[in-house]
Amino acid sequence: MSEERKAVLLLSGGLDSTTLLALARREGFDVHAMTFRYGQRHGSEIDAARAVARRYDVRDHVIVDIDLRTFGGSALTGDAAVPKDRSDDAMTHGIPITYVPARNTIFLSFALAFAEVLEARDIFIGVNALDYSGYPDCRPEYIAAYERMANLATRGGVEGTAPVTIRTPLMMLTKAQIVALGTELGVDYGMTQSCYDPQPDGTACGHCDACQLRRRGFEQAGVPDPTRYV
Amino acid sequence: MSEERKAVLLLSGGLDSTTLLALARREGFDVHAMTFRYGQRHGSEIDAARAVARRYDVRDHVIVDIDLRTFGGSALTGDAAVPKDRSDDAMTHGIPITYVPARNTIFLSFALAFAEVLEARDIFIGVNALDYSGYPDCRPEYIAAYERMANLATRGGVEGTAPVTIRTPLMMLTKAQIVALGTELGVDYGMTQSCYDPQPDGTACGHCDACQLRRRGFEQAGVPDPTRYV
Repeated sequence: MSEERKAVLLLSGGLDSTTLLALARREGFDVHAMTFRYGQRHGSEIDAARAVARRYDVRDHVIVDIDLRTFGGSALTGDAAVPKDRSDDAMTHGIPITYVPARNTIFLSFALAFAEVLEARDIFIGVNALDYSGYPDCRPEYIAAYERMANLATRGGVEGTAPVTIRTPLMMLTKAQIVALGTELGVDYGMTQSCYDPQPDGTACGHCDACQLRRRGFEQAGVPDPTRYV
Repeated sequence: MSEERKAVLLLSGGLDSTTLLALARREGFDVHAMTFRYGQRHGSEIDAARAVARRYDVRDHVIVDIDLRTFGGSALTGDAAVPKDRSDDAMTHGIPITYVPARNTIFLSFALAFAEVLEARDIFIGVNALDYSGYPDCRPEYIAAYERMANLATRGGVEGTAPVTIRTPLMMLTKAQIVALGTELGVDYGMTQSCYDPQPDGTACGHCDACQLRRRGFEQAGVPDPTRYV
């Protein structure tokens, strides 16, 4: 038996991170998944993450409770209404109200701690610079700066052993390309959840930015959309 | 009334962060303090942080619950014994067991989120490169890399407005210099707590690395040590 390489993977249970997990498993990584319960409106995405983690036979799946509502400041944590039916122009310009301050920085920092304890050198995050151009913490230059900082923050950086790599294989893919990749990898997107404002049972609203981008991704990839919309 | 400049300050209730707070207040910052309850053995330091925050009239004081024990890996979170009576050589070489993986990275990330919501541009952290030379995340090069990343992670970085500054005025001071500075600022060190392994009432063990460094700091500064030791 060959030894698999350990990786920490940030898993939200959405379309992107599920595709990321399928890819990491195909590449032979022994995945330790990490999901955050951060006061988001869409708590049913935790259930989606659990189901996806089981499906992909991860080594372990840690659910971390953090309360970003302490600070306020985002529609995703219940401080403002989730915008619906926004135009393409509105979706791709400016920082949206669904942006959670420093969210990826906080998530990656927990992943870094977990990786250091596990002695894993690889951290996977499903950020994407194309569809979420308004989020500062989804850009390649941000990820590069994070990686550099991470290698100064940890034992490996000091002792000159294992450098940490932040892996973002979805960074430059369109949503349609992500759907096509996942479909090729056999991902069952019916298990995943992307909606910012779902019903308690996980049914998607169909109108928030995430639903619009997701729906269009399936259309453009020519793949049937298994999402349950209201 | 002149308007004070907002700052987020990481406050543990120990000697360093209390001196830091006194300094930030003297420099005219309107301080939003942030303390973490992270599964540390020394929970009584939260009480010390609360008392210190009141004494320095902070704007608000947020206590954030995060469970670093999820990952294990440090004596400070109860996974191993706190080392006692270590030699100078042992204290200043290698990464100690009391190192908590990625702790400052996690703390700074929450501070960054808080700063972004408050539109504060300054984050104070009481790291010190001299007395804690074994901690990778207490070095100037780490802080510089963090600041660079932080400015790519946030709205200010994207919109070209308010860059974030990570302020570390204690970085190059010896413990004796920190004690001397705080004494000049009128700090009551009897309110502060540094011990890694205190009694439930906050009485210090006197023998862990933090107690040894602290005790020597008072001696070398020629300042009476108000700490209650066992």
